Amino acid sequence: MAKPKIVLAYSGGLDTSVILKWLKETYDAEIIAFTADIGQKEELDGLEEKALATGASKVYIDDLREEFAKDFIYPMFQSGALYEGQYLLGTSIARPLIAKRMVDIARAEGATAIAHGATGKGNDQVRFELTAAALAPDIEVIAPWRSEAFRAEFPGRAEMIAYAEKHGIPVQASASKPYSMDRNLLHISFESGMLEDPWFDPSAEENEGMYMLSVSPERAPDRAEYVELTFEQGDCVAVNGETLSPLAVMEKLNELGGKHGIGRVDMVENRFVGMKSRGVYETPGGTILFAAHRKMESLTMDRDVMHLRDSLIAKYATLVYNGFWFAPERLALQALVSESQKNVSGVVRLKLYKGNVIGAGVKSPVSLYNPDIATMEADPSQAYDQGDATGFIRLNALRLKVSSGVEQSRKG
Amino acid sequence: MAKPKIVLAYSGGLDTSVILKWLKETYDAEIIAFTADIGQKEELDGLEEKALATGASKVYIDDLREEFAKDFIYPMFQSGALYEGQYLLGTSIARPLIAKRMVDIARAEGATAIAHGATGKGNDQVRFELTAAALAPDIEVIAPWRSEAFRAEFPGRAEMIAYAEKHGIPVQASASKPYSMDRNLLHISFESGMLEDPWFDPSAEENEGMYMLSVSPERAPDRAEYVELTFEQGDCVAVNGETLSPLAVMEKLNELGGKHGIGRVDMVENRFVGMKSRGVYETPGGTILFAAHRKMESLTMDRDVMHLRDSLIAKYATLVYNGFWFAPERLALQALVSESQKNVSGVVRLKLYKGNVIGAGVKSPVSLYNPDIATMEADPSQAYDQGDATGFIRLNALRLKVSSGVEQSRKG
Amino acid sequence: MAKPKIVLAYSGGLDTSVILKWLKETYDAEIIAFTADIGQKEELDGLEEKALATGASKVYIDDLREEFAKDFIYPMFQSGALYEGQYLLGTSIARPLIAKRMVDIARAEGATAIAHGATGKGNDQVRFELTAAALAPDIEVIAPWRSEAFRAEFPGRAEMIAYAEKHGIPVQASASKPYSMDRNLLHISFESGMLEDPWFDPSAEENEGMYMLSVSPERAPDRAEYVELTFEQGDCVAVNGETLSPLAVMEKLNELGGKHGIGRVDMVENRFVGMKSRGVYETPGGTILFAAHRKMESLTMDRDVMHLRDSLIAKYATLVYNGFWFAPERLALQALVSESQKNVSGVVRLKLYKGNVIGAGVKSPVSLYNPDIATMEADPSQAYDQGDATGFIRLNALRLKVSSGVEQSRKG
Amino acid sequence: MAKPKIVLAYSGGLDTSVILKWLKETYDAEIIAFTADIGQKEELDGLEEKALATGASKVYIDDLREEFAKDFIYPMFQSGALYEGQYLLGTSIARPLIAKRMVDIARAEGATAIAHGATGKGNDQVRFELTAAALAPDIEVIAPWRSEAFRAEFPGRAEMIAYAEKHGIPVQASASKPYSMDRNLLHISFESGMLEDPWFDPSAEENEGMYMLSVSPERAPDRAEYVELTFEQGDCVAVNGETLSPLAVMEKLNELGGKHGIGRVDMVENRFVGMKSRGVYETPGGTILFAAHRKMESLTMDRDVMHLRDSLIAKYATLVYNGFWFAPERLALQALVSESQKNVSGVVRLKLYKGNVIGAGVKSPVSLYNPDIATMEADPSQAYDQGDATGFIRLNALRLKVSSGVEQSRKG
Repeated sequence: MAKPKIVLAYSGGLDTSVILKWLKETYDAEIIAFTADIGQKEELDGLEEKALATGASKVYIDDLREEFAKDFIYPMFQSGALYEGQYLLGTSIARPLIAKRMVDIARAEGATAIAHGATGKGNDQVRFELTAAALAPDIEVIAPWRSEAFRAEFPGRAEMIAYAEKHGIPVQASASKPYSMDRNLLHISFESGMLEDPWFDPSAEENEGMYMLSVSPERAPDRAEYVELTFEQGDCVAVNGETLSPLAVMEKLNELGGKHGIGRVDMVENRFVGMKSRGVYETPGGTILFAAHRKMESLTMDRDVMHLRDSLIAKYATLVYNGFWFAPERLALQALVSESQKNVSGVVRLKLYKGNVIGAGVKSPVSLYNPDIATMEADPSQAYDQGDATGFIRLNALRLKVSSGVEQSRKG
Repeated sequence: MAKPKIVLAYSGGLDTSVILKWLKETYDAEIIAFTADIGQKEELDGLEEKALATGASKVYIDDLREEFAKDFIYPMFQSGALYEGQYLLGTSIARPLIAKRMVDIARAEGATAIAHGATGKGNDQVRFELTAAALAPDIEVIAPWRSEAFRAEFPGRAEMIAYAEKHGIPVQASASKPYSMDRNLLHISFESGMLEDPWFDPSAEENEGMYMLSVSPERAPDRAEYVELTFEQGDCVAVNGETLSPLAVMEKLNELGGKHGIGRVDMVENRFVGMKSRGVYETPGGTILFAAHRKMESLTMDRDVMHLRDSLIAKYATLVYNGFWFAPERLALQALVSESQKNVSGVVRLKLYKGNVIGAGVKSPVSLYNPDIATMEADPSQAYDQGDATGFIRLNALRLKVSSGVEQSRKG
Repeated sequence: MAKPKIVLAYSGGLDTSVILKWLKETYDAEIIAFTADIGQKEELDGLEEKALATGASKVYIDDLREEFAKDFIYPMFQSGALYEGQYLLGTSIARPLIAKRMVDIARAEGATAIAHGATGKGNDQVRFELTAAALAPDIEVIAPWRSEAFRAEFPGRAEMIAYAEKHGIPVQASASKPYSMDRNLLHISFESGMLEDPWFDPSAEENEGMYMLSVSPERAPDRAEYVELTFEQGDCVAVNGETLSPLAVMEKLNELGGKHGIGRVDMVENRFVGMKSRGVYETPGGTILFAAHRKMESLTMDRDVMHLRDSLIAKYATLVYNGFWFAPERLALQALVSESQKNVSGVVRLKLYKGNVIGAGVKSPVSLYNPDIATMEADPSQAYDQGDATGFIRLNALRLKVSSGVEQSRKG
Repeated sequence: MAKPKIVLAYSGGLDTSVILKWLKETYDAEIIAFTADIGQKEELDGLEEKALATGASKVYIDDLREEFAKDFIYPMFQSGALYEGQYLLGTSIARPLIAKRMVDIARAEGATAIAHGATGKGNDQVRFELTAAALAPDIEVIAPWRSEAFRAEFPGRAEMIAYAEKHGIPVQASASKPYSMDRNLLHISFESGMLEDPWFDPSAEENEGMYMLSVSPERAPDRAEYVELTFEQGDCVAVNGETLSPLAVMEKLNELGGKHGIGRVDMVENRFVGMKSRGVYETPGGTILFAAHRKMESLTMDRDVMHLRDSLIAKYATLVYNGFWFAPERLALQALVSESQKNVSGVVRLKLYKGNVIGAGVKSPVSLYNPDIATMEADPSQAYDQGDATGFIRLNALRLKVSSGVEQSRKG
């Protein structure tokens, strides 16, 4: 009988290398190693050989960057999602894509399970597994870090290194950093280690070495730089007049934001699994895109559509954060969000300067802003009659007057 | 028979000076001039004499700054209100206080009407009049700018100046600025004139002369400054360890923010009366307070309380913006907001640098963040069993699996 | 020069007959009379002659019943809209359709204005005029009842009758009823007159003569009747197994509901123009459809989609009630609602008995209810492991424990 | 060393009798049996003796009915909570009270754990345990049905009976019913067994034997009965003019509702643990109270307060259903709800007839309904000027016109 197959999300690092071997032995299975290129810019060269040397029967290394930008980052940014008022969801939005691709590979290869190296305390395990549940309820998910046997065998890093040496797994003896990180096209996140103390100041000059995508505002150029983003129906389609794919937009904005010290966030956040944790993020391009999108909306989006959408941002962001990207309620919300973007087209001009994203003008062929109506000068269009405000206010005031009258007569 | 009395919101400027006289003649009434000191820092000296000289029968000049900070700004900041994702509601929150005091004066003086100089196109008229409706439904509100007769008599500034000269109204021959502004303890706003073109860039160096409360980020000091804010139940009670009243907190933060180029916003916003308009704001202290408050909450506020409150921010902000401060639905929302702040106490450390408000640490005796639980290291408290995540994920995934299975069987 | 043209919503009653004539004279215009058949079942015979005799230059009598059911009633029922927990929006949903058709006729005829006979106190004027604004901002709307001149000329019914006689307008000398009513395919509404006293009991036997679409529960048959409704993607497509058009479904359900005393509502409601009013409604078919739809959803709709949609029902209902059917925020909400209905298909069995709509079974080929999972007996599918609940509860409890611990240590 | 103590929620039935013994042996602990009287009307006589005979070291039988009505049912009914549009949360609202009392007893007795007999598939386990987490994070909760050892020992009812006989546990040899049920002051629920088929019709005459609190509409009296409920600040304080405690109100309304066939619900609902299940409920008094409360609100509650509160009903109901009664987000919502009830006072008259709760009049000394304003007749109060509607509509229409104009020019 053929051995069962397991698709493993593999990075080539110590953890997933050990897991690859451990899975192969524990389950007596063929392990298909899968690495998604979602813009992490880590060395992908040699990864295939390494996986094979570690025992993988087959290796997939897939460039998902354009799909990531187009089908995940862009729809999310249409919503204006910001988790707990601060976090642009850089890690959250990547997980469903990776899990989706793993499911696809599992289907293609006839694998019965997928496996990941996320821990039992974080959000990523949830995001992977909810995606798998939504897309392939029949496929098993293996999370070794939640296995008591695995945790017993590997109580610490030392045991993993010993296991790797014993099994001839090639691992780099890199010095461990006092924090963990996760990088993709949208952001890089830092957590754990020294960051666990919320009074610790990661913005202090001595911690500048941690950051990878941006300089600090202090180190950014002394001269501001202007940039123009063109939007069509809520999506950025050009930068400085040059039409770009979603991937190219993100790369261009990352470069600009990083150069000008834009997009660092330091926060305590609430994980889906129930505890607070401290995270530091660099999201240079996303921060520019977020600001530009809101400014584009301000000129072109109907007021009540905006207020309705805004009332649902917290919900949308929580769904993405918690891993419900492929859940039907996210799809329902997305239908509303996409409908809301029909008219969000035009050009936003921004000034980038030492951490600041400063609005410097917005225009649109479908602008809903009519200076003739808003002006305090004489209105050439006659579209607004000041006398109308009297009736408007009176009818808005009516219920307040009635309530107030009742209250006064009760007290009197 | 005694003449009727009208309480007029009086600033000493051309408009309200002309209105004072016009009201007196049109209604054959005694005019009680009222000026609220809400931190506008304009010259209040000589205002009483001027009002009397213009024809007022009595003058009130009331210092409402502490009440403004304590009973209006502070409760609003508890909510995290931000109108359309950008505006800290500096003008909106001041109007109900002014109108409330006018109603109180009207009651004390036996006046039957109050009057204001707000135009028929803006939000302020609504805020004044909804407040009056909620507090004194029996008192009439007179809005000369919505009177056709008044507008016919004063089609432009020239006619007002002529009227003032004719009636011996003392007006200063100040050069008119190419925009209008409104200032108080929380902010200053600019609109109209050159700002009516949304492509106009108010952040350009040549427009620096417009700003009054802050330097530009470019002109701010090259050296960052740290500040610590202490919160109790959602309110800032001390700065850098010094206990301060709400007014003193706002003044201190305005000074700090202004010095470091913090709190400028340039936006297109949606007025309650139905049109979009362009506004530029300086809110130096409020911007610091807003950021600090969110960081304080991140450490001390329960996750689901935060998500619930966040889902209502857009609603709360719209109520304040539209002038419904004294409406029962704002009071109901405030009850929820205040309840949500019970545990929001501790200290936030911020780094102020060229327009940036950077988190630099947060701590609290009632912190809900437990590094022992969140840590990726061994958890000494044993409060979290990674195995629990398996059941947690499985039950969260259950409905997704069932849905997915149904869909697959339908397609299959 | 050609006379201007005005399209008038014309019913043939006293009010719109007088208005027809009055408009023709006041505006020196051609009046195009328009009557929509939306199921009001009033005499449409002779209406064309009557309109022409009254002075209309042209008459449109359009059967909009199928469009009303398909494009208005059905999408609204997908949302589960219920205004203020009680009202099925029978009048509200009809107005946008009528106004839309008037705009179409105005376009076709080159008319520059449309006119209606709704009063200045009700919701209908708003619904007509917001629809016109959204579809044809260039077309003027004339509302004679809000004209001071018109109200001065017609302070009461007597003056209208005199005017009609004077101008040879044919009016029936019907005895005036002590209430007003409005009927269409979805419902009939009653208000005013004796109903203005909220302590008045319209359900008393002596008031039975008012009702037109239903018998009282007391007078309904002593024997229950079962009915089966088949749904596809949220819409009822068959009754008792017979495939029917939306119009035919509504007619069939109206017959059944009316026979069994179903769908009467007596309520005090809040009008958009600011006051409370008392309304009595008969919605026999709609009440059955509403109950059936919810039951169909309960079996086939994902939990979180339902909870999300439910949180927006109050908003959706208010938009329809206030007349914002063609506003972009209703369209955005509809996108979410329609997406939520993708799986709402199956059969609902109901028992109709003396005012009650009693669930008597529901089934679906895409049911999300799996008795194997829910059963307290042994689960043959093994889809649910009771042990999973432990982790699920523990992680849901985690934040509560942390909060509680902090609170206890603070108190202790 | 003293044995540990465990407080067990004990009913005297087979399950909790076996669990009592099993816990005592498994944990070598003292078992304190606790039974809450929350209106289940089951035989409480002899329960103490039975518990002691089964091995309990101590027995608490506490009458919590008044507290249940006053501090749980009443605050919840203020919110208008209805889970998934149908369920009045009769079981959900009782669990937190029981768990709270268990925690109190555990504290008083120095017990370190509490235990319950709820299964691993239902909501009740969650409600018990979240309450314990919120009130006593240090106290362990034991849920034998989620223990693999327990389930292995008791795979079915036969093994439990054998175990009981072996240990001399007194159990009644009652015939097992083909469904399970749970009763308290607010309702009785039925589920499982024959009800697991959603096409099964529990309203059929042959199933009438299942119901305990109400007759069917068919069997209800042929003559309607009127009842008047008096409300103060959202709570019912008198029935038919007689002042009653919350408990007495519930009992009186249960009697009336049961007599007239009111309050049966048959639904498929979504459990917190992830699956759909079918439940049948009788809530006779609650159904009357719910309808009366809404009618009282309709006359006395401000429109926008109602719409705000209504938008949160789904959230509130879900919190109660899921067991988050003592969670801070429920408390925050309750603050809003209680504030919303300040003016909800007056008298509601209802007609009860064969399953129907028919409004028959409502009045209040603080009514916000003013017939003088709403009337279509001449308004003696002059509080409403029909001309005001013109401005009101125009400004509400302004954004629609602008949008529409932009769209037309784009298409044109």
